[in-house]
Amino acid sequence: MPLRPSITGRRQALLLAGALLAAPRVLWAQAADPLPSWSPGPRRQALLDFVASVTTEGGPGFVPPAERIAVFDNDGTLWVEQPIYTQLTFILDRIRALAPRQPEWQQDPLFRAAIAGDMRGVAAGGTEGLLRLAGAAQAGTSPEEFQRIAAAWLAATRDRRWGRLHTELVYAPMLEVLALLRANGFTTFIVSGGGVEFVRAFSERVYGIPPHQVVGSSFALAPGEADGRIVLTREPRVDFIDDGPGKPVGIARHIGKRPIAAFGNSDGDWHMLRYATEGPGRRLGMIVRHDDAEREYAYDRQSHVGRLARALDEAPARGWHVISMRDDWGRIFPHG
Amino acid sequence: MPLRPSITGRRQALLLAGALLAAPRVLWAQAADPLPSWSPGPRRQALLDFVASVTTEGGPGFVPPAERIAVFDNDGTLWVEQPIYTQLTFILDRIRALAPRQPEWQQDPLFRAAIAGDMRGVAAGGTEGLLRLAGAAQAGTSPEEFQRIAAAWLAATRDRRWGRLHTELVYAPMLEVLALLRANGFTTFIVSGGGVEFVRAFSERVYGIPPHQVVGSSFALAPGEADGRIVLTREPRVDFIDDGPGKPVGIARHIGKRPIAAFGNSDGDWHMLRYATEGPGRRLGMIVRHDDAEREYAYDRQSHVGRLARALDEAPARGWHVISMRDDWGRIFPHG
Repeated sequence: MPLRPSITGRRQALLLAGALLAAPRVLWAQAADPLPSWSPGPRRQALLDFVASVTTEGGPGFVPPAERIAVFDNDGTLWVEQPIYTQLTFILDRIRALAPRQPEWQQDPLFRAAIAGDMRGVAAGGTEGLLRLAGAAQAGTSPEEFQRIAAAWLAATRDRRWGRLHTELVYAPMLEVLALLRANGFTTFIVSGGGVEFVRAFSERVYGIPPHQVVGSSFALAPGEADGRIVLTREPRVDFIDDGPGKPVGIARHIGKRPIAAFGNSDGDWHMLRYATEGPGRRLGMIVRHDDAEREYAYDRQSHVGRLARALDEAPARGWHVISMRDDWGRIFPHG
Repeated sequence: MPLRPSITGRRQALLLAGALLAAPRVLWAQAADPLPSWSPGPRRQALLDFVASVTTEGGPGFVPPAERIAVFDNDGTLWVEQPIYTQLTFILDRIRALAPRQPEWQQDPLFRAAIAGDMRGVAAGGTEGLLRLAGAAQAGTSPEEFQRIAAAWLAATRDRRWGRLHTELVYAPMLEVLALLRANGFTTFIVSGGGVEFVRAFSERVYGIPPHQVVGSSFALAPGEADGRIVLTREPRVDFIDDGPGKPVGIARHIGKRPIAAFGNSDGDWHMLRYATEGPGRRLGMIVRHDDAEREYAYDRQSHVGRLARALDEAPARGWHVISMRDDWGRIFPHG
């Protein structure tokens, strides 16, 4: 809150006071339904109960604001991940564009599959293969330049099924959860298996999550100089894989506190969900289950993208809430 | 600002409005002098001019709040680093306590020096040597457990010269800079050559900087299980050295944006100062120069702790402001 010594402090204070006194009814109306895209039911109630519990001073579940850390997987939890990860579409577009200058790529089955658009061949490489492609597609640029390339691609590339920008295919109910938590003193983080710079290219604008609150997989950065300036260059070498058991490690390294709430949608989030919900005191673990083929997609155990089996099976015993997109979400996307 | 939909939003709003209306004179008084520990002069003015410039909408130096990133070295910039780094005192205390159970340490010159309290022998190992000692002193615990150990040590251990807790030996003028910047929309980060978990053990309480806004050197974390829970264990293996050329790398990896302001005190901050001030638009680089032997310490080129030579020599050409502790700071510590 801007109540510290400030050059513009007094003006801000008066504007703020005026705004608050003028609009109590608006605030009250919003407070009455912070989750308008959620259907009434146990999942919506679990969210509201959790927030009420950890914010009630003197109550048994109270958590001080500094400890209110919430982590969110990105692909399949905050935005669409089918039929293939958006970042993979981006990487394949880049690989195809760069391929004429890299004839040696034709010797590598993984790259041949990528250039040919053979998704099965690409998927066979697993997360490590994806990151190898990602490294090759993105090496040689600075982090800032890479974020610009990614942002330009996101501003120009549309999903085939809906004809919309990928950044429009975010889940409205989850945007409401982010806003609800932040309004109640939480700090919200993305903890993604995807490359951290790619997510940072849109997280602030789309989710209200600044780059420093994005944890993800990363490539090595080489420090150097060019034209009398320090230049950092992305190397095609994977530095850290923020998936599965890597997620708690990424959280500890980057956030430095154990989250009290975690949201995921696949077995890649199983470790993160456990890490968050195994701590003491009131905890919340939620899994987005994709069971709505009509409005989005329906997949779980058999999917090669966002496979969900173990986390689903163990959810009841671990107290994790399984969100049904079909039943719990009145709308899926911000555009309706 | 808590103006989003919120379960407790209305109550917060009314409390906030009441507080603001009740205390305009206090706010005004603070706004009139946000830097009471600073003596009038060019460094104080440079700070105020910079803040005014980047926050003046429509002005030539305006920077949107999301880009107002400021980075601070810790040792020698925010708190005392002489006669040896506080973290090194902590590490040596731990090494001595653990030594009876680690007879093999006697075979290693670095560890022998540490156990004997031979500071010259310890210093001979450089940053890598310090981190090796740090790893040995701190391996085998979880990050949470380590932060508790460090916090307990900090709560019990006093500096020999002043007889005060190390967390009292922070620079009041720099606390004011942190508060001034945050009150003007900045996000403040520590970027320390020290171990990240050690700084995280006190950064929130002492500097108002939460753990996820602390970048530092780190040890590898091994994921595992114990008693049916996920456990992360610190390994005695250095994972990243956030010093010198590592500081821009740490900033890019962790923050994901180029800072517009950087504060340091030694040649270990030279790369970070360059990285921040080589970006486009209005920038601020400041160096704390320790030239006050009476109230703190006086050292620069010859010191084995916090050596300052190159950054000092290049400061005029690079537009960096050199803060004289003796002349620019009316008081050094919060206790006067």
